[in-house]
Amino acid sequence: MATLAADLLNGSRRALARALTVVENERPDAQALLTALYPHTGRAWVIGVTGAPGTGKSSLVSAMAAAYRKQGKTVAIVAVDPTSPFTGGAILGDRIRMRDLSGDAGVFIRSMATRGSLGGLARTTRDAVRVLDAAGFDIILMETVGAGQSEVDIARAAQTTLVVEAPGLGDDVQAIKAGILEIADVLVVNKSDRPGADNTVRALRAMLELGHPTNGGRMISHHGLMMSDDITHPSPALPVGDVWLPPVLRTIATGDSRTQNDGIVELLTQIETHRAYLLDGHRLREREHDRIEHEIRDRLAHTLMKNLLNAVSSEYYESVISQVQARTLDPHSAIQALLSAR
Amino acid sequence: MATLAADLLNGSRRALARALTVVENERPDAQALLTALYPHTGRAWVIGVTGAPGTGKSSLVSAMAAAYRKQGKTVAIVAVDPTSPFTGGAILGDRIRMRDLSGDAGVFIRSMATRGSLGGLARTTRDAVRVLDAAGFDIILMETVGAGQSEVDIARAAQTTLVVEAPGLGDDVQAIKAGILEIADVLVVNKSDRPGADNTVRALRAMLELGHPTNGGRMISHHGLMMSDDITHPSPALPVGDVWLPPVLRTIATGDSRTQNDGIVELLTQIETHRAYLLDGHRLREREHDRIEHEIRDRLAHTLMKNLLNAVSSEYYESVISQVQARTLDPHSAIQALLSAR
Repeated sequence: MATLAADLLNGSRRALARALTVVENERPDAQALLTALYPHTGRAWVIGVTGAPGTGKSSLVSAMAAAYRKQGKTVAIVAVDPTSPFTGGAILGDRIRMRDLSGDAGVFIRSMATRGSLGGLARTTRDAVRVLDAAGFDIILMETVGAGQSEVDIARAAQTTLVVEAPGLGDDVQAIKAGILEIADVLVVNKSDRPGADNTVRALRAMLELGHPTNGGRMISHHGLMMSDDITHPSPALPVGDVWLPPVLRTIATGDSRTQNDGIVELLTQIETHRAYLLDGHRLREREHDRIEHEIRDRLAHTLMKNLLNAVSSEYYESVISQVQARTLDPHSAIQALLSAR
Repeated sequence: MATLAADLLNGSRRALARALTVVENERPDAQALLTALYPHTGRAWVIGVTGAPGTGKSSLVSAMAAAYRKQGKTVAIVAVDPTSPFTGGAILGDRIRMRDLSGDAGVFIRSMATRGSLGGLARTTRDAVRVLDAAGFDIILMETVGAGQSEVDIARAAQTTLVVEAPGLGDDVQAIKAGILEIADVLVVNKSDRPGADNTVRALRAMLELGHPTNGGRMISHHGLMMSDDITHPSPALPVGDVWLPPVLRTIATGDSRTQNDGIVELLTQIETHRAYLLDGHRLREREHDRIEHEIRDRLAHTLMKNLLNAVSSEYYESVISQVQARTLDPHSAIQALLSAR
């Protein structure tokens, strides 16, 4: 593992690919590898890109990668795909558009598929991002499907989180994705050459203004209000005091020759603005603190549970479940019994 | 607590309300109460009703409750509302329509709001359902907003789970809610007097046939295929061999005098069919086993974590987080350090 870590730190792409496989498969030597690499992390800017299927996330990520390359930055893309069979194909299809990127040594693309639980995927994705960070990429684009707590957890690992929308999604989509909107640093209306883009921008602004129900109005205190009513132009990010106002941007990642890549450079500028905002004062430090605490708690719960289940015989575990089912033991007493059985 | 439990088992509504408060606030004496009540549970049929905002879930639940009352059954309604300020009002509004129910001693309505985490809400909701079960209600209707893992966990506590849709939701909604569709025993297209109802029925059938991407095609093996192409009539539930085929039903919970309550009686019949299916052979037992194991694991993880954080001084905990942030300690070693500090 020490050799693998050294080769990776020396820029070997083969070592990088092997290290990612070790981490993704949660092989026993993954911990030693991650321990060796950890001091070399913290240099990359990690950008989470999340949104529902059909918003064109993958094309947007490709366009962003190309734009970052034009700025001379190296880019790693982690496409997290918890939906193996069907969307797996879709992501592959989108990846074909990345072919022009793939000949470029400054770009590295990796798809992560779920092997077990989504919680497991969140853990291995965080580790994969660390490996890519240690490998020296300037930008790490982490693409996730915005659907559920685990994807929110994955997105939380980013320093700047983009939430991607597209015209033509129903109003109810917005309500469902409120938990995801809450984590948005930048809102992107992709496919903005399609009809209804104005409505989508308006709906997002309205939600930002309300502070959406399912986050208990917290968005207002975290992110503040969008003040602008001008929906025909991208609204700039306006840090007021200590509050970041998530800008709503329009992009066209895949358009005709005239509109192709519309808004991408502006998007990168807004991400840079967000980065400068976080780097000002203690903001990034506070955000990192929350992120690390969240990760530590998640890993602790996972490890505690694994250790307990290893310590209790499966016969005893099964007998406790049976007693609860027979109603001769209640769930609360069952927990105490299992804890005492260690 | 023994008196409270005895009064509740004797049918006191005041004791029931107090017991629910004890459980909802996770008061220290909640465990003793639940231990006393647990042997008296397992009689009610618990029906989960989940779906996005705007599908008319609350009206559907009211209409179902009224229909069950006509069958002479007692009904408890638990409305789980993780979205306090905004939807809180909406649920209250819907509850006004329940007024005609509320004079009836055979109906009991309780709203559960989130106090802490959604995970905590899933735990207290399971306990509240047990309290209502012990209180002797024939039917417990558990209404949740279909958005995210915790609501899926809540719905899992039901014996029959309805997933409610309504016409006019975008296609992407379907993709997002795939995890919820997977847990559906009966699919309900409510507001089916609205334009687009045929499309919604068709979309749901198509998803059932595909086995939706985000469940890895598992829906096919769990629930089988919908064979009927006739979308103008409700498709009956067709248990074929050991497979339950979730029927797609149309309802109008709130219509004009002519359409009001359309499909509600048929819905109750389908729920009864599903109940008979589960009671045949070991199916209910297997389902309960999975449900109980899931609950035990969730409670174990919660308790293990709580105990660990109690055993470690907050100074040490904070110092470990700081070291991880400073990159002098990696997350994996941090977990080991915290586990050893107990």
